[in-house]
Order: sequence, then C-alpha cells, then structure tokens
Amino acid sequence: MDIALLGGTGDIGQGLALRWADDTNHTIIIGSRKAQKAANKAEEYETELASRGHDDVSIAGLVNEDAAARADVVVAAVPAYHLTDTIDAVADELDDTTLVAPAVGMQRDEDGFHYNRPGAGSVTQLAANAAPDDTPVVGAFHNLAAGRLANLDADLNWDTIVVGDDTDAKDTVCELAEGIEGLRALDGGPLANAAEIEGLTPLLINVARHNDGLHDLGVKFQ
Amino acid sequence: MDIALLGGTGDIGQGLALRWADDTNHTIIIGSRKAQKAANKAEEYETELASRGHDDVSIAGLVNEDAAARADVVVAAVPAYHLTDTIDAVADELDDTTLVAPAVGMQRDEDGFHYNRPGAGSVTQLAANAAPDDTPVVGAFHNLAAGRLANLDADLNWDTIVVGDDTDAKDTVCELAEGIEGLRALDGGPLANAAEIEGLTPLLINVARHNDGLHDLGVKFQ
Repeated sequence: MDIALLGGTGDIGQGLALRWADDTNHTIIIGSRKAQKAANKAEEYETELASRGHDDVSIAGLVNEDAAARADVVVAAVPAYHLTDTIDAVADELDDTTLVAPAVGMQRDEDGFHYNRPGAGSVTQLAANAAPDDTPVVGAFHNLAAGRLANLDADLNWDTIVVGDDTDAKDTVCELAEGIEGLRALDGGPLANAAEIEGLTPLLINVARHNDGLHDLGVKFQ
Repeated sequence: MDIALLGGTGDIGQGLALRWADDTNHTIIIGSRKAQKAANKAEEYETELASRGHDDVSIAGLVNEDAAARADVVVAAVPAYHLTDTIDAVADELDDTTLVAPAVGMQRDEDGFHYNRPGAGSVTQLAANAAPDDTPVVGAFHNLAAGRLANLDADLNWDTIVVGDDTDAKDTVCELAEGIEGLRALDGGPLANAAEIEGLTPLLINVARHNDGLHDLGVKFQ
C-alpha cells in the first residue's frame, strides 16, 4: 500500500515512516509544505533504514499535495493547529483515499498538560469536517509517544485505538497499525468516540512527568 | 489503617473492600445510607473472604457517618451524582481524614460512552469542593473495572493514577493502592489533572464494547 505522511518531517510522522519502512513492505511518501524539506527528510530516513540493512527501501519526499496524490492512505501527521489548512490544501487529491488523523489538541498550564477539546467535539472530527464528503476519515495513532516510536531500537508493546464511521477504511487502518511490530489496533467505535482517545495523550505526558523512570509512555488495555 | 468505603455496598466499593481484605491487614468498614444494608453487605463480604481462608477478617457495616468517624481514610465509592451529598453528610467526621474520590461522570449516547466533565473541572474537583477545607482530597481508582476488581480469582495487572495537592495524603493513597496485588499506583500530579484520568473510563468501556474478547478492562502505562 502507498502511504503518504503529510507533515512527515515532524516527530510522529518520522516515527510512523520509519516503523512502516522497517516492519512492512508499504511504500512510504513523506509530505511537507516544502518539497526540499520533504526530500531531505526522506533521504535521512533512507540512510537510517540502510544502516539497519534496508538497502532497498526508497522513500519519496514531496510537497504535501503531490504526496497525497500518490497515496492510498494519507496520514495528516501535523499538529492540531495545522490540521484543517493541511487537509484543505490536499483536498483535491483525496479521491479514493483514506485520511487518517492522529492529531490531539493540548494546552499546558502550571499543573500539567490538559486536553483542549475543540468545539467540533474532537480534533479527529475537525479533520472529518475539513475532508471532502466522500473521503473516509479514521482517527488513529493519537497516543503514541513520538520519541520511542522513532527509535527503532525500542520495543513498543502498545495499543492504538482506531475510530471511524467507514468500516472498510477503519479495517484498512487497523491492518496498517498492526503491521508495526508491537502495536495492537483496537476498535474504538465511531468517530464520535474520538475525544476520550485524544484526552489520553495529555494524561500520558502528566504521568511521565511525575514518575521517575517512566517516559515516552503508551498504553496497553488489559 | 482503617478504611471506610462510603457506598461500599456498590460495585467499586465491593471490589476495593474485598481486595484490601484479601491482600492486606487494613481494617475495612462498609458505609451506606442505611445501616442495615451496610451490615448485610459486610456480612456477605466476610462470608466470601472466609470461603477463601480468611476466617479472622471482621468487616463492620455502618451508616456512612459512623463509618467515616472510625476511619483514617474515607473512600467516597458512590456515583458522581451522589458524591456531593455523600460528602456533605459525613463532613463533620472528616477530621484528620484523607478523602479519596474514585467517581467519574459519564453519559451514554448512540455512539458510545462519553466523559461528562462537570463545570468544576472534574468530578474529583467536585469532591474537593464539597470536603472541609482541612480535609485532603485525593483522586484515585477511577479506571478500575468493578467486575474484575470484585472477582478475587481474577488477576489485575493494572495501573491507577493518583492525583492530589497534599503530598502526604497522596503517598498514603498510593501505598493503599499498591497493597492490592497487581495494582500499581502512578502519580498524576495535582488534583487539577483529574479530568484526563476520569475521561479514560468511558474509553475503556467503548474499547471493551467494540473488541471481542476484551471486557472489564483497565490500563497499563508503559
């Protein structure tokens, strides 16, 4: 499958790109607002993968629109405040494409990190509102600590909760998620259940900050 | 330590009572709005514990006020909509007492369960607002599936996140939590971080509803 990571130069995009390239045969395309930045990062990822024995992996780096045009699945791996603009920019390229939204809105105050729930109900819902009507939107990968995800020497043993209203698209994303070693995909139901998933991310950060020896946390549901 | 479980006839109270009685030497006191109901449940728990070889365990069942008066730690194991009334009723008995709030507010719609965040910020904050000023309030045990907790044949392997503004009280509750076999207490920071913990409970229920073979879920942060 061809997977475009819009904002694939950022931390969560890097982690997903490296993991999929390391663990699966999917074709990875890095998108960025600037083609040169995307190309540079793609080359950096190729170099890292080659150092791990993947001499045959080729990762393209393109401007977001071109990356989206080539993909079966587009992951909008951008911060919440860039999400709508990023989707608007690639909307014409989303025919027959599944759009995946991993973004979470957070704010920090003196006590810790808190979920900043948008009026639309969730950041994932914001993505659905911005996407063309016939593009299925799936929420996934909200709770993955980017640092550990991008460190291919680190084992994961995490769950990711997948939500969406299109069953086929959700199944596709669950398969992609489970292609990553140590990641289990769990069905969270319809897209309207996204807020509680997004709210878990600030909790993970708060717990990591207050407990010695715990950092880059994910969760396992058991 | 003497632990009173207000609403200890309900499901989460039952689970905590049985686990502490089974795994520790703490004295357990069951509270209810009706003394007879508390006494009946306490006897039921004693019978179950005796069947597991704890012939020496004595559990008192008292009206909530009397249960609180005897305790070092009071757990308000009541639903969110009874929380303020329950704390008001025992307020005069909370001298030198740590008050623990495990309640979560949820609502259910056609999509699933959702966190119903109170205007005060969290249900745990509602408990703090209702408690006397000199009673430290600690949030804990929000994310424990009551069914599995109360089934002493079931292993847990769960985390519980503990929040509060009084360090000594929080340490006490962490120790109580870790007295339960298979339960790890993690520091979530100040009380103001409670909402994201409470929001995890509806997510656990949604995940259990949508994934075959998963039920009575808790989480492990890793």
